[in-house]
Amino acid sequence: MERKGLLIVVSGFAGSGKGTLMKRLVEDYEGYALSVSMTTRDPRPGEVYGREYFFVSKEEFERKIETGGLIEYASYVENYYGTPRDYVEEQMAAGKDVVLEIEIQGALKVKKRFPDAVLIFVLPPGVEELYRRLKNRGTETEDVIRKRMSRAREEAGAIGEYDYIVINDEIDKSVRTLHGLIEAAHQTTGRNEEFIRGIRNDLEQLWKGEK
Amino acid sequence: MERKGLLIVVSGFAGSGKGTLMKRLVEDYEGYALSVSMTTRDPRPGEVYGREYFFVSKEEFERKIETGGLIEYASYVENYYGTPRDYVEEQMAAGKDVVLEIEIQGALKVKKRFPDAVLIFVLPPGVEELYRRLKNRGTETEDVIRKRMSRAREEAGAIGEYDYIVINDEIDKSVRTLHGLIEAAHQTTGRNEEFIRGIRNDLEQLWKGEK
Repeated sequence: MERKGLLIVVSGFAGSGKGTLMKRLVEDYEGYALSVSMTTRDPRPGEVYGREYFFVSKEEFERKIETGGLIEYASYVENYYGTPRDYVEEQMAAGKDVVLEIEIQGALKVKKRFPDAVLIFVLPPGVEELYRRLKNRGTETEDVIRKRMSRAREEAGAIGEYDYIVINDEIDKSVRTLHGLIEAAHQTTGRNEEFIRGIRNDLEQLWKGEK
Repeated sequence: MERKGLLIVVSGFAGSGKGTLMKRLVEDYEGYALSVSMTTRDPRPGEVYGREYFFVSKEEFERKIETGGLIEYASYVENYYGTPRDYVEEQMAAGKDVVLEIEIQGALKVKKRFPDAVLIFVLPPGVEELYRRLKNRGTETEDVIRKRMSRAREEAGAIGEYDYIVINDEIDKSVRTLHGLIEAAHQTTGRNEEFIRGIRNDLEQLWKGEK
C-alpha cells in the first residue's frame, strides 16, 4: 500500500532540545524530509544558508509572501520566519513525512490550513532542567535566558493545541518516541479512508457474487 | 512520571487474526492486562473458564447487568457477551493498559462511556486473504464462512468510528504496530494535562520569582 506523506510540525521551548531531536530523527529513520525555513535574520556563526535557514533580505521575503510561496510565516523580534511551500509539497507528494520545526504562531496557522498536519510539542522533563540547559549553552547572557524563560511561559498556554507531547529527557528514547508518534499518525482511520473503502467495496462485491 | 492506564478496545473481522495479536501483545510487552469477557454461550472444545471467557448462565449474566457489574454488554446469536467492570478498573488503577477484545456494538458503547478509550480495528490485508484464512481454519462449514463474511460486510461500515487501524499482514510487525499505537496514545496532550499544567505552573512561579 502506498503511503501518503504527512506534515509534521514540531515546536518546543528554547532549550527543549527540539533541534537535536529533529536532526536525530532524520538521521536514524528513513522517509523523513526536514523543511528548511526562510528568515530575514542574520546568520549566527556556523550557520549555513540552506541548512539552518534560507537567509534572505526583507524584500525577497516579502516577494515570497506576495506570490503565495510560503505555507506560513510570522515575525518574531523584528524578523520574518516562514516555510517555503515548494519543498514541502514536493516531498509529501513523494511519500515523505515532512518535518517543520516552527514556533507556535506558525504551527497553529499550519494546523488551520492543513487540518491533517500532526502537531508535536517537545517539552523538557521539568522547568529546572530547562533553565539549566539554557545556562549550560554558555552562549547566552542572563538577560537572554530570562527572555527565553519568559517566552516559554507565554508559549506554555498553547501546548493544549498540539496533538502530542514528547518529554525530551533522554535523546535516544525521545527520538524513538517521536518516530513512534508519527508512525501512529499514519494508522488513524481518518488517514486510511481509501484502504478502508477498498475493503468495504471488496466485501460488497463478494457479497453480491455469493447471492 | 506515573502513567495512567488506558482502556484499549480492539475489534476486527472474524479471521483478521485479532485474537493472536492480543495474545502476542501481552506476551511481548510489559504493562498490559487482557480483559476476559463474560458470556452465556457454551465453551468450545479447548476453551477454559477464565481464559477465553467467563462462561456463565443466562441468570448469572442478567444479575451482573442489574448490579452494574458490566462496562458493556451485547447479545449476538442469542447469547450475551459482556466486560466485567471490576478487573478493568483494578488494572487501570494499577497503571496497566487494559485491552478489551470486543465486537463493534460493545466498542462503541465503551467509547461513549469512556471517551478516553482508544479504539483499534484490526484488518486483514485484503478481502481475499480474509476468505482464505477463514477457509484454512478448517473448522467452519461453507455456511458459517459465508455468515462471517456477511458480518464483516456489515461491520465494515463502522470502522470509521475507530481511532486507528492495524493491517495484520505479518504478525511480528503487527504486534509492534499495535504496541506503538498504544504508546502514542499515552503521548496525546489530552492525556498529559497534569504534566503540562505542572510545567506551566513552574514557569509561572519562576517568573514571579524573577520579577
